[in-house]
Amino acid sequence: MPAYYKLTKDELQREYEKEKLFFEQCKAQKLSLNMARGKPSKKQLDTVSGLLTILTEAEDCIVDGVDTRNYGELAGIKCAREYWADMLGCKPEQTFVGSVSSLNLMFDVISRAYTHGLLHSPRPWCREEKIKFLCPSPGYDRHFRVAEFFGAELITVDMTWDGPNMDQVEQYVQDPQVKGIWCVPKYSNPDGIIYSEETLARFANLKPAAPDFAIMWDNAYCVHEFRGEYKPFPDIISMCEAAGNPDMVYEFASTSKITFAGSGISVMAASEANIQHFTKLFSVQMISNDKINQLRHIRYLKDKAHTLEIMRRHAKIMAPKFRVVSEALHRLILPCGFAEWNEPKGGYFVSLNTMPGTAKRALELCKQAGVEMTPAGATYPYGVDPRDRNIRIAPSLPPVEELEKAMDVFCTCLKLAALEHLLEQ
Amino acid sequence: MPAYYKLTKDELQREYEKEKLFFEQCKAQKLSLNMARGKPSKKQLDTVSGLLTILTEAEDCIVDGVDTRNYGELAGIKCAREYWADMLGCKPEQTFVGSVSSLNLMFDVISRAYTHGLLHSPRPWCREEKIKFLCPSPGYDRHFRVAEFFGAELITVDMTWDGPNMDQVEQYVQDPQVKGIWCVPKYSNPDGIIYSEETLARFANLKPAAPDFAIMWDNAYCVHEFRGEYKPFPDIISMCEAAGNPDMVYEFASTSKITFAGSGISVMAASEANIQHFTKLFSVQMISNDKINQLRHIRYLKDKAHTLEIMRRHAKIMAPKFRVVSEALHRLILPCGFAEWNEPKGGYFVSLNTMPGTAKRALELCKQAGVEMTPAGATYPYGVDPRDRNIRIAPSLPPVEELEKAMDVFCTCLKLAALEHLLEQ
Repeated sequence: MPAYYKLTKDELQREYEKEKLFFEQCKAQKLSLNMARGKPSKKQLDTVSGLLTILTEAEDCIVDGVDTRNYGELAGIKCAREYWADMLGCKPEQTFVGSVSSLNLMFDVISRAYTHGLLHSPRPWCREEKIKFLCPSPGYDRHFRVAEFFGAELITVDMTWDGPNMDQVEQYVQDPQVKGIWCVPKYSNPDGIIYSEETLARFANLKPAAPDFAIMWDNAYCVHEFRGEYKPFPDIISMCEAAGNPDMVYEFASTSKITFAGSGISVMAASEANIQHFTKLFSVQMISNDKINQLRHIRYLKDKAHTLEIMRRHAKIMAPKFRVVSEALHRLILPCGFAEWNEPKGGYFVSLNTMPGTAKRALELCKQAGVEMTPAGATYPYGVDPRDRNIRIAPSLPPVEELEKAMDVFCTCLKLAALEHLLEQ
Repeated sequence: MPAYYKLTKDELQREYEKEKLFFEQCKAQKLSLNMARGKPSKKQLDTVSGLLTILTEAEDCIVDGVDTRNYGELAGIKCAREYWADMLGCKPEQTFVGSVSSLNLMFDVISRAYTHGLLHSPRPWCREEKIKFLCPSPGYDRHFRVAEFFGAELITVDMTWDGPNMDQVEQYVQDPQVKGIWCVPKYSNPDGIIYSEETLARFANLKPAAPDFAIMWDNAYCVHEFRGEYKPFPDIISMCEAAGNPDMVYEFASTSKITFAGSGISVMAASEANIQHFTKLFSVQMISNDKINQLRHIRYLKDKAHTLEIMRRHAKIMAPKFRVVSEALHRLILPCGFAEWNEPKGGYFVSLNTMPGTAKRALELCKQAGVEMTPAGATYPYGVDPRDRNIRIAPSLPPVEELEKAMDVFCTCLKLAALEHLLEQ
């Protein structure tokens, strides 16, 4: 099959009919397949279910003189703070251990910035005339939504192979209304890009006009290689400190994709001054987070070295799924010449750019054929991809057999949408 | 020992010296006793530690087709919503199951009212010129602090034996700046009062000027009898609905004092419209709460009937402690005639009014003698008790032997502060 752009209208029409026939056959099967969200599979959850029986006796719940069953220890139990410091390369005093959701910690930071201000805010963000937030795109829809929820204007920053376009970032932060940026520095969602050392250095050395500019550093995939060796990653907190910007960065991580997606533990890491500031703010809303679950995790995960061993178990389950995606795209889409995609070594996604103007239609067709995908546009501010081409593929949830089927349907839908587009011209 | 008010200056002086001697002896013992917070004791936590082993296998985590280990079910798993509906007498659709902390749910309601507004808010509270919150006092310091945190002016409402003074409440709600009220309707914190049926009816029938007036109904002690039988309590949500105020009340509860104080599950209950509204708002900040912990709780607690059985185990541990408090006060304070206190049948506190102008000093003396108490004034808005007389005694944490010692010290400090006060006059 030659590239679509080389075909005549008649040839395109024949391709269309062929694909359409296959599409109708799929539709008739009333499939229900899901590649919409970065959800771990049942097999992955099973492989870490030893977590359920790691604490069984009352006495197991007592650690360092703290009874984790009772109130207290707002910032997290000692060993949990040490664990996260080990994982991220920062200090225990620079951590606040949260509940199951790092998203909730990010939300709380922005929410508190809005209602009360951050450490260096001249006033709460709700008293600013206008605020803006930088959104490297394609990016994570839930990040963008948090900033939008608090009235920020979302500004798209392009993604490059080294991370966000730092020329744009450095330009934008000269505007004092620009209050922050969302980052997924390792295996970015959805591109799977690892920010380069130069990008990190430029982030640490930013000189924003806003004294309370916040780098929201969502290190969601810090140990999430599924192909090749673990790739060490610098500690952004000490880099910012060395550059004279100690309080500029708020880092986040969680065990959502290490243990249980719905019942892990999360962390915020930042300068000690920031952690003290937020611990004080958090004391208004809670007495403590779930310390039993913290201890359960620390007893099970032990330390970074052992966590990396567990991640190799996940990798064994994840790698074949990314292979299915890659093979299907190479076999079915590459020859048609209208799309490109990444081949990440970690994270949870494959980011694909299809023929401009056809992503939405392709996913509409997927839906008709019983394959649920992240909505088109979701990876851009306001859910609008200006070129209507980016699609996030999340292959982690379905078993390999289902995934193969889902990718067949998906590729057919991509082709159908592209062919419709070309035939209309 | 006769009542202090009958004594001459010389007799008071002799009493003072006697108490002072005992006080100095206590001080020399370098005690470290705690009656500051409503924390369950180790014995209570041990009695429910079967919770730790109720889910052990991967397959145990699947319920009603939902894998609780994965993302999803933002409002809580079905059986957890049913459990809370059973407990509170409302419908499952009227519940949102939260994380370990009901305080966090209350905070989120007020926080969202401030940033976005409630269902019937003309505008977010942060865009109001001024907001006010009613605080029946003595009350719970953490409630008051949440409203204060969001800039509300706190208005003291007197507590009566039937609950808040409803004449005052009905008067105050005619002011459109009055946006809500904090209530602990059953075994109020700290008075241990159960709101009367008339009080409940007057709450349900309030006609506030603010269309978004919020009754914050913290039913923290809904099944927390430690003496006598369980006392059924009407469902405020259906009462408000019947009175034409369906969306006026937000009810809260948790298992913090049923299972583990730091690792329970919580709930917000409200009209279905309110729950839908908040589920949508919460979808911005989280994907789901800890569903494994929800299921763990439901499997362990089963239903309301079985929960009441577990509460009887707690009662067996709690009752002797409240007896110690009561006996010490009767023996040491009653004859002196300068203080009065409640004798609750449930909840976690004894509320004591000592000689006006001496509460702060008494607790300062307690501190010197190694007995930690809730700070004086904490039960009033802004931490200031206008008569400086209310003290919250929280006897749950220390074992009985320690509690006896602590109460001896406490009573001596009460007396010393009263005697100092009388001698100064």
